[in-house]
Amino acid sequence: MSNSAYESLCDRFREIDKLQHAITYLSWDQMVMMPPKGSETRSGSIAELAGLSHAKLTAPEVEIWLSEAESTGDNEVSIREMQRVWRNANCLPAELVKEQIVAGSKCEMGWRTQRAANDWKGFLKNFKPVVENSRREAALRQQASGAKTPYEAMLALHCHGDSEALIDSVFKKLREVLPDLLQRVLETQGSLQGSQRAEYPIENQIKLNKEMLTTLGFDFTAGRLDQSMHPFSTGSAGDSRITTRYETDSFMEALAGTAHEVGHASYESMLPEASRGLPVGESRNMCIHESQSLLFEKQIFYSKAFMHFLTEKVHSHLSTAACLSADDLWKLGIRVAPGKIRVEADEVTYPLHVMLRYEIESALINGEIEAEDIPDIWNEKMMSYLGIDTSDDYTNGCMQDIHWTDGAFGYFPSYTIGAVNAAQIFSCVKSEHSDWQEQFKRGDVGFVRDWLSKQIWSKGCELESQELMQSATGSVTRAESLIEHLEARYLRGEY
Amino acid sequence: MSNSAYESLCDRFREIDKLQHAITYLSWDQMVMMPPKGSETRSGSIAELAGLSHAKLTAPEVEIWLSEAESTGDNEVSIREMQRVWRNANCLPAELVKEQIVAGSKCEMGWRTQRAANDWKGFLKNFKPVVENSRREAALRQQASGAKTPYEAMLALHCHGDSEALIDSVFKKLREVLPDLLQRVLETQGSLQGSQRAEYPIENQIKLNKEMLTTLGFDFTAGRLDQSMHPFSTGSAGDSRITTRYETDSFMEALAGTAHEVGHASYESMLPEASRGLPVGESRNMCIHESQSLLFEKQIFYSKAFMHFLTEKVHSHLSTAACLSADDLWKLGIRVAPGKIRVEADEVTYPLHVMLRYEIESALINGEIEAEDIPDIWNEKMMSYLGIDTSDDYTNGCMQDIHWTDGAFGYFPSYTIGAVNAAQIFSCVKSEHSDWQEQFKRGDVGFVRDWLSKQIWSKGCELESQELMQSATGSVTRAESLIEHLEARYLRGEY
Repeated sequence: MSNSAYESLCDRFREIDKLQHAITYLSWDQMVMMPPKGSETRSGSIAELAGLSHAKLTAPEVEIWLSEAESTGDNEVSIREMQRVWRNANCLPAELVKEQIVAGSKCEMGWRTQRAANDWKGFLKNFKPVVENSRREAALRQQASGAKTPYEAMLALHCHGDSEALIDSVFKKLREVLPDLLQRVLETQGSLQGSQRAEYPIENQIKLNKEMLTTLGFDFTAGRLDQSMHPFSTGSAGDSRITTRYETDSFMEALAGTAHEVGHASYESMLPEASRGLPVGESRNMCIHESQSLLFEKQIFYSKAFMHFLTEKVHSHLSTAACLSADDLWKLGIRVAPGKIRVEADEVTYPLHVMLRYEIESALINGEIEAEDIPDIWNEKMMSYLGIDTSDDYTNGCMQDIHWTDGAFGYFPSYTIGAVNAAQIFSCVKSEHSDWQEQFKRGDVGFVRDWLSKQIWSKGCELESQELMQSATGSVTRAESLIEHLEARYLRGEY
Repeated sequence: MSNSAYESLCDRFREIDKLQHAITYLSWDQMVMMPPKGSETRSGSIAELAGLSHAKLTAPEVEIWLSEAESTGDNEVSIREMQRVWRNANCLPAELVKEQIVAGSKCEMGWRTQRAANDWKGFLKNFKPVVENSRREAALRQQASGAKTPYEAMLALHCHGDSEALIDSVFKKLREVLPDLLQRVLETQGSLQGSQRAEYPIENQIKLNKEMLTTLGFDFTAGRLDQSMHPFSTGSAGDSRITTRYETDSFMEALAGTAHEVGHASYESMLPEASRGLPVGESRNMCIHESQSLLFEKQIFYSKAFMHFLTEKVHSHLSTAACLSADDLWKLGIRVAPGKIRVEADEVTYPLHVMLRYEIESALINGEIEAEDIPDIWNEKMMSYLGIDTSDDYTNGCMQDIHWTDGAFGYFPSYTIGAVNAAQIFSCVKSEHSDWQEQFKRGDVGFVRDWLSKQIWSKGCELESQELMQSATGSVTRAESLIEHLEARYLRGEY
């Protein structure tokens, strides 16, 4: 008996998953282990695997299987997710994809030196073709997906299920509240007591970070912690790979980074086993993914109660941190200070950085502004949202991020929608566990993991993202969730 | 214009090479980095890649391209090597390959506990199907390749170009000379002066090994040194991966292992760039490969002159080794002591261990003996070659090696043919560089690398292995080369 169309699709997607596994760990190796001279051959191998994977997904039989499988009426949700992945892979002509890779890597390579040289004009020359390609991409994706605007079609790559309208409404609310909230925080937060500037040996920091990871539920028989230039998390169930960056004169950033990445890693590790290798078994979207990392970082790690627990461990591993009390560390962690750089921004100003990028990139992709217009709009918005002058400082202005250089438009919103989701989800966890602070003080976060596993991680792609938020928290994503959290922590000093 | 058949072949082999690249580094990761729970998914991914690679090699168009390309008369050597790789992949039915994998992994898994339990009977039950499968394989390979015996067809997988007749003649000579030479060495070598038993912190050993690697020409911008249970070398040009195993109470074994692996790594790194990714650009065979590792280990590392250079570095990294002089270290390194275990054997007794295995496995595959006969023959030969009684000690007798468990017959000879080749090659290097010992004393081995690069590494598979030995050393592999070396070092104490 021959396979049903659906079984053939499952086999095919599992084959693709095995190629993606290879790409995942080869890429990890490239960033964490590989010596510099291995670069060219490695890129060639990864490109070959990506090509094979793409060919397996776009082969003519897949379209036939999809329509056959759909017609049976079974496995509806699984097939919906297969369709989505298939459509994303099929709607661009190979020629455009190639052009994008060429223009994107030229722009990114140039950016590495142009950013440092504050060379906007040089960058703009490479950036304009990237924008043009992305506009073509957005138009084609809009056509294929029925998105309301070209930008929404790009958004769907990262934030599928969160419409431009929803994201717009969240930012609208944040725009009304945050600049004023920020002023109040700046007026009320006292001067900083302790300072963490001292010498902290990296081997001690590694031990501290590993101990914290274990506390946060990370399983070292199913994962690793290493170092890289930019912290990231990758891998899959059974083999999570987290990286952190250590500085010898501070330790909070590395800890916060590790806490952030373990949120990503936990989600990927705890996806539903039965549908492993199938689209429906994957993580939902980046807004949900980022909510998991931000929940571990902002809601758990930076809480007074967890910091209380952690302080003892900090003291035992880092003798030079003995002068810092739990309260010092907490205040250090939640210090608010507006600045030019997004990745260094605190929890209150970060959404403003993202909002600015969201407004610019959506207007750019929807054809309302041109690449040339970016610096002026950037400066104006930085002044209005954060009161910071970035004129003529492209390096720390509109050239600071890598995202746009290779056309990753539509990604930025996930940082802030993720932060809102994290606050909203954690507020539910808290309401069900009134002793949460006592548990955190003992280093017990198992109840949070259990909640997330049941409500989020085990769902994979069964629900669309806003259905998932609704089922987990009783509501779609609400900007108020983040605002309430920020007010409680930064104005009332509650946790 | 469409590609010529030869161009199509080149493209295809380069695609396969990119898949092999992925398998190489995923396997390295599996052995060096991967957490235990990643095992199952990783094996699945590697199997998928191996299957894709095999399918690309055995696809019908390849046979057509091969015969078309051959008929043009061009690129003769390159096509010869493509034919060889293609024939090796094509001559076994898929059903046999599958049976072999199943029986082989059952036997190997069982062996892990049976060896420790000295359970020959239990092992034999799993081992007999492995032998039967290998005999079928050998018969099919003989048919496809025109080898003179079934065993020669298996040999060709690892020692292609070195005939059973040549290997036989080498072992015949060694059999005549070595047992007697061993007795004379044992009678003349004095008692050992220094002992290396002390505490050597692993981080210091790592630094020492890395410094030695740099001395031996290893480029850390194109490679790494890590730790694993069993030292090995893998990777390709631009990205060599060497591993070593450290003990805290000794350091010479790790250094020797590192020196050995850098020989393998250097060969792989310095293969001809123009034919990278094609069979003709690969390393020749395991007899040549092992000659490179043994040249670095036995001829360079264990030489009096290099040990003289290294002693200062040992002292500077390992304070507890300060009591050991250069002469102590050299004598420690070349200590001869017959024992039951091959991997612990010294340079003089090692070939006898290999000879015994060669005699048994060739008779087994050629159908002259049965698996049941192995222990008796083993014991008899151990007594005759090394004067050691292994009766009833299967653990340290015929069950000590992993090789046969999954049917890797025909590999063992490469250890000793490699040792002979190493001695023969190095004797040429010495004859052209009469100041070799002065150079080694300064830690200068560049002249050896230059020689090897020109005569061996840059040749890839252009020449058959004995043509390569002839062109590099003026003669095919001669047992006398090893005997002369052993006599000079172990009887006359020359270097």
